[in-house]
Amino acid sequence: MTGGEAKLIDQAGRMLGPKAVITDPKEIEPWVTDWRGRFHGATPAILAPASREEVAQIVRLAAEHGVPLVPQGGNTGMAAGATPPADGSAILLSTRRMNRIRSISADSRLAVAEAGVILATLHETAYQVGLRFPLTLGARGSCTLGGLTSTNAGGTQVLKFGTMRSLVAGVEAVLPDGSIHDGLSALKKDNRGYSLDQLLIGAEGTLGVITAVALRLVPTIAARAVAWAGVESPAKALDLLRFLEARTHNIEGFELVPQDSLDLVLKHIPNTRAPLAGKHDWHVLVEATTSDTEIDIAGELEHLLGAALQQGIIGDAVLAANGAQADAFWKLRDTISEAERAEGQTLAHDISVPVAAMPAFIVEASAKVEQAFPGLVASGFGHLGDGNIHFHVRAASHAAPDWYEAEGEKVTRMVDDLVTDAGGSISAEHGIGQLKLAEFARLAPPGRIHVLRAIKQALDPLGIMNPGKLVP
Amino acid sequence: MTGGEAKLIDQAGRMLGPKAVITDPKEIEPWVTDWRGRFHGATPAILAPASREEVAQIVRLAAEHGVPLVPQGGNTGMAAGATPPADGSAILLSTRRMNRIRSISADSRLAVAEAGVILATLHETAYQVGLRFPLTLGARGSCTLGGLTSTNAGGTQVLKFGTMRSLVAGVEAVLPDGSIHDGLSALKKDNRGYSLDQLLIGAEGTLGVITAVALRLVPTIAARAVAWAGVESPAKALDLLRFLEARTHNIEGFELVPQDSLDLVLKHIPNTRAPLAGKHDWHVLVEATTSDTEIDIAGELEHLLGAALQQGIIGDAVLAANGAQADAFWKLRDTISEAERAEGQTLAHDISVPVAAMPAFIVEASAKVEQAFPGLVASGFGHLGDGNIHFHVRAASHAAPDWYEAEGEKVTRMVDDLVTDAGGSISAEHGIGQLKLAEFARLAPPGRIHVLRAIKQALDPLGIMNPGKLVP
Repeated sequence: MTGGEAKLIDQAGRMLGPKAVITDPKEIEPWVTDWRGRFHGATPAILAPASREEVAQIVRLAAEHGVPLVPQGGNTGMAAGATPPADGSAILLSTRRMNRIRSISADSRLAVAEAGVILATLHETAYQVGLRFPLTLGARGSCTLGGLTSTNAGGTQVLKFGTMRSLVAGVEAVLPDGSIHDGLSALKKDNRGYSLDQLLIGAEGTLGVITAVALRLVPTIAARAVAWAGVESPAKALDLLRFLEARTHNIEGFELVPQDSLDLVLKHIPNTRAPLAGKHDWHVLVEATTSDTEIDIAGELEHLLGAALQQGIIGDAVLAANGAQADAFWKLRDTISEAERAEGQTLAHDISVPVAAMPAFIVEASAKVEQAFPGLVASGFGHLGDGNIHFHVRAASHAAPDWYEAEGEKVTRMVDDLVTDAGGSISAEHGIGQLKLAEFARLAPPGRIHVLRAIKQALDPLGIMNPGKLVP
Repeated sequence: MTGGEAKLIDQAGRMLGPKAVITDPKEIEPWVTDWRGRFHGATPAILAPASREEVAQIVRLAAEHGVPLVPQGGNTGMAAGATPPADGSAILLSTRRMNRIRSISADSRLAVAEAGVILATLHETAYQVGLRFPLTLGARGSCTLGGLTSTNAGGTQVLKFGTMRSLVAGVEAVLPDGSIHDGLSALKKDNRGYSLDQLLIGAEGTLGVITAVALRLVPTIAARAVAWAGVESPAKALDLLRFLEARTHNIEGFELVPQDSLDLVLKHIPNTRAPLAGKHDWHVLVEATTSDTEIDIAGELEHLLGAALQQGIIGDAVLAANGAQADAFWKLRDTISEAERAEGQTLAHDISVPVAAMPAFIVEASAKVEQAFPGLVASGFGHLGDGNIHFHVRAASHAAPDWYEAEGEKVTRMVDDLVTDAGGSISAEHGIGQLKLAEFARLAPPGRIHVLRAIKQALDPLGIMNPGKLVP
């Protein structure tokens, strides 16, 4: 611990009270390794302020003593953006005690909630007033609104409702100079200069600490219908999406699953079975929802899939007969990563390309990777309608235990090159954090890096806000 | 003309060819006064590049010679953000020759169009492929996409589709160092650092020159229904909006009109008549649209208004019997400003407060202004559902011709104070430009100004991009 850290902890400790300051290494330990277990950091202390004013005091102290801060919510990030550096030079600033839902309005369809509120808690609270916060993802039981905002999180409902960027109506944050930015009045129209809210969304805590957000809510779901369809190619899957979108506004989920992934799930995940009798090279999970009690959503989806079958867009389809079967269909999609881990070593890539280019990309990039690295199996699954798939590359069955270390980086560089050549993004929804920093630096146009650095330097000249993340 | 300007024009002239350089004062004259005729600038030349590469060359020359550039589209801005300074120190950079629609895709529902494309041209082109760009406003026949993006323009369709910020899927721009930012691949998900696209939207050309945008399109309208309702207060008008929104997704326009404004229109605008027989203190124009040919939109709106009448939310309502009558209803709304001008001197304020706070604001702020300035008439009309009204203050009938100069600033300061106290914005949709720069500087929190200046300085350290606008 350097002198600056000791002084900061001492002063912050007196300010916050004993409960909000953790210095016991055993209590710290769970929070300094990232979700995927790949990055291991260290910190002399976790500070957990309970209000934006306390955050502001900590930030001012950190600036005074030159001690970096690493903001952290649920520690569920996929790119190690909330893991402190290994040298212990930074203090972890946990938002978990800022966990109040300050207001929720059925009339305005807005919730104002603090950064440490767990996503599932917001879901439940909104539901109690007849509304819904439509963004959801696997970590909903532990991820926080501050983290979701700072990483511009996506998930499975982006097709209809967008990412956090579309759902955040306003941001409250403590800026690196300790001043408070209050964007929570959530004006629908406000043209007074550069949007600081938009700048903070997806900034991974490098421009300030988000302390609260105003979020848009939508009506609750009155009914949903889930179907599973077999298609011969990703191109046909996209044809199906276009066909559906031209005929209804109710498609909320549209997930692509290759036969290979389905086989792995059926092999490794208990209590799973294939929805369709025949074999199809590719599959699509479709979810339609409506908030209108008068719409027969199952009938609508069945009718549309019947028409798609007749037009040769799909090879077969089945509608979930009830909620349990719908959940079973989703389980097939949601356990792909788990099944892959059971099968062996897998390299995951969260990438996007323009939606129209995705079908060709999946097929061509998979072939190129498999050709360059004989024995590997490459495939893409996920959010086809967002142009965002999880492009996974599996080690050969006979791969050595250190395959990941030995060959992983080369494979990832090839995938990232292919994505960049296709005009895509090497980080569709997980962010850059530490995980993708080197690849981002390698592939981004120099002008892009220059702009990011200039903005970072302008707002955080002392470099105390989450250094070593996002900005190469 | 200083030496720097002469060199820049000479070099740019050789680069662009004679047609793209205008130095004749007579040809320049229409472009150096703002739309409202309140700001008069001067410039030694207008440069009209035809490509982003030409823009980049001009920006690099401008940086080299230290000559400021003022980007301009259709010169229809409401805050004089595209009017050059009066001392002739800046060159006008017109985007009008960059007027190609580069691509339009019915599948992707995306258009990529250059900054100088006129809004009405995009409307027509989209319509030809069965799609619609939903943002529209009075100046659609002359305003450009670059200007609309740079001012984050709104209009009458924001309720359903949002402002430009929601409709822009990607931005191409030349940054102040002459580098090109290309965000046109329009990825639906891309989490590679701070969103430069979002930073450029609404930046009024102070951070770079937007050269093209990717825009989201929606299905064309299959049917529309327009109604006029009488209500007793702005609160009841908002009740009506909530009532409708809870029952249909098809409300696209919702405009509040006070009886006083309607009276002025009926008095001054030929061929107008009141839609309702009785008198009502307030009125609402409602437009419902659908892209679904199977929906009976007129029947739906009639049914809902009938229910609202029964519940005492509205006092009366009439559905337009046909397109001509619908247009006649809209004319009553769209000619309010014209009627006010015919009546006498009027001060216009484009302001917003949180939607839920707007009904009380309209009533209370009007009363306070009329009390503080006896003889003046204050009222608000416009986009109630966006929390954005045009708060207009009319001079007393006996006012001196110089009332505007004598008392206007004091009135505006009072309105701006009331808006700020209500947590609102002194510029809801028109921007800051030159018009509101002093008031913005007076009322913004110091931290806000600091951040804007820091970002401006970071991206445009030489201060060559539209100086004197937006950033106090």
